[in-house]
Amino acid sequence: MEAHERGFFTEENSVEVVTDRNRNAKDERLKQVMEVITRKLHEAVKEIEPTQEEWFQAVMFLTKTGHLCNEWRQEFILLSDVLGVSMLVDAINNRKPSGASESTVLGPFHVADAPELPMGSNICLDQKGEDMVIHGRILDTEGKPVANAVLDVWQANDEGFYDVQQKGIQPDFNLRGVFRTGPDGGYWFRAVKPKYYPIPDDGTVGKMLTALGRHPYRPAHLHFILKADGFETLTTHIFDPDDPYINSDAVFGVKESLLAEFDKVDDAKRAAELEFAGPFWEVEYDFVLARTKGARG
Amino acid sequence: MEAHERGFFTEENSVEVVTDRNRNAKDERLKQVMEVITRKLHEAVKEIEPTQEEWFQAVMFLTKTGHLCNEWRQEFILLSDVLGVSMLVDAINNRKPSGASESTVLGPFHVADAPELPMGSNICLDQKGEDMVIHGRILDTEGKPVANAVLDVWQANDEGFYDVQQKGIQPDFNLRGVFRTGPDGGYWFRAVKPKYYPIPDDGTVGKMLTALGRHPYRPAHLHFILKADGFETLTTHIFDPDDPYINSDAVFGVKESLLAEFDKVDDAKRAAELEFAGPFWEVEYDFVLARTKGARG
Repeated sequence: MEAHERGFFTEENSVEVVTDRNRNAKDERLKQVMEVITRKLHEAVKEIEPTQEEWFQAVMFLTKTGHLCNEWRQEFILLSDVLGVSMLVDAINNRKPSGASESTVLGPFHVADAPELPMGSNICLDQKGEDMVIHGRILDTEGKPVANAVLDVWQANDEGFYDVQQKGIQPDFNLRGVFRTGPDGGYWFRAVKPKYYPIPDDGTVGKMLTALGRHPYRPAHLHFILKADGFETLTTHIFDPDDPYINSDAVFGVKESLLAEFDKVDDAKRAAELEFAGPFWEVEYDFVLARTKGARG
Repeated sequence: MEAHERGFFTEENSVEVVTDRNRNAKDERLKQVMEVITRKLHEAVKEIEPTQEEWFQAVMFLTKTGHLCNEWRQEFILLSDVLGVSMLVDAINNRKPSGASESTVLGPFHVADAPELPMGSNICLDQKGEDMVIHGRILDTEGKPVANAVLDVWQANDEGFYDVQQKGIQPDFNLRGVFRTGPDGGYWFRAVKPKYYPIPDDGTVGKMLTALGRHPYRPAHLHFILKADGFETLTTHIFDPDDPYINSDAVFGVKESLLAEFDKVDDAKRAAELEFAGPFWEVEYDFVLARTKGARG
């Protein structure tokens, strides 16, 4: 037998030898995934030409990243986020037809059991922050309203914290709510203007960002999950275009189409109608849902 | 500004957007490494097109791998080993001039303080296993003997365990020794025939090997580190070519040039000279060291 037939490894044949060793994998998808991972990993190593010390630094980086993961914290997801991998996987899995609203990352702060509220409710339960009213419509790609759509919203407060990060400081379910559209597809609720915030930056990912000259901030945004029968579920944000970090989201979540307008309104009559004490922020944003493939029009 | 100038991420521009974000990294090497990692990682994701579930499985695989790492166990190094990355890094860092002995992986079982012994010593301290004598020369690439070379050898026993894996069962420093060559560059010592053994296979890497239809075994071998002034340090193995796993080393450590001959000798006179009770194994292997670049010839 020739050396390569015997599975003997060289710098030149490394991809073929390792991939051939996986030939008996029963799961074809696993075999395919491992072929790509092996090839791209070896390509990267051959291009980088790491020293033994650099290789060991990489091993220790991954080890420390793993040690930071627990029930409450997922440092490998953060790593995926700041490398653009999470957004890439999101993009690949959410290619939308023309005209439909774009998706972005879910993030770690969604909770499944937020209360369903009547339209117009104020999801700010502690009266902290600048008042804001948000309204718009949920439409299909032909511009028709989607009735019975469920809008699940959550956001950080005026200091950049979610309720689950400040248990005992913020009320439970602060700045969360679930709303259901009527026949007009319209939605509206009251809240406070969200603020930018850092992703957790006291671990390996934070150290990496510092070494790369990057900040850990996400620009101010509201999270949404929109569900309706016959439509693809949409997980997305809307962003404040005037946020100082709008062009440098640490996790690459911003898309042009997700920039809303945050307008300052100084109108005593409208403020009184909304039960706001003074000037407030107004956001109008329409969501467009894509029909499930094969669903009736 | 255009969307891509604002750092807005799309499936198409993902590599450029993420890499541009690292433009202020102070360390040029880090910047270069991150550029390659980002590009190859995104290429892999675009080719694999993972579902969100597959992405999360990958996150959990890395997390569990990290959790298995402790003072005694390095599951990420095992992962690097079974993906051929460790051997690739070894190959890149040990490109040898023609005629010099080839390197292979260090492995986790070297200990720094093994005793220096007189030539001919028997490194088997517990009389278990089949007797073996190993001899040869340490040469330069011109075939001249290297005097004052230090040969550090360690091996598994006849059951495939190193002393450090069986503390209290094997004597300390069993099957380890350090030898120093004289003017003739020759070396010899006595030992036992080593046996194949599995890499630790009760963790994430072991599960992965099973899913890939792979076994966890390394073919029988002896480890060597060879050091001499004016020469590059050589970390290598010699392998038993008749081992059942010689063509499928779990960590891809085998190279054609590292196959020794293990000859069975049935010669009562020689056995008596070597203080062996009966038939024994004989291995002859010459090591060729490469001169340090720039060292005097």
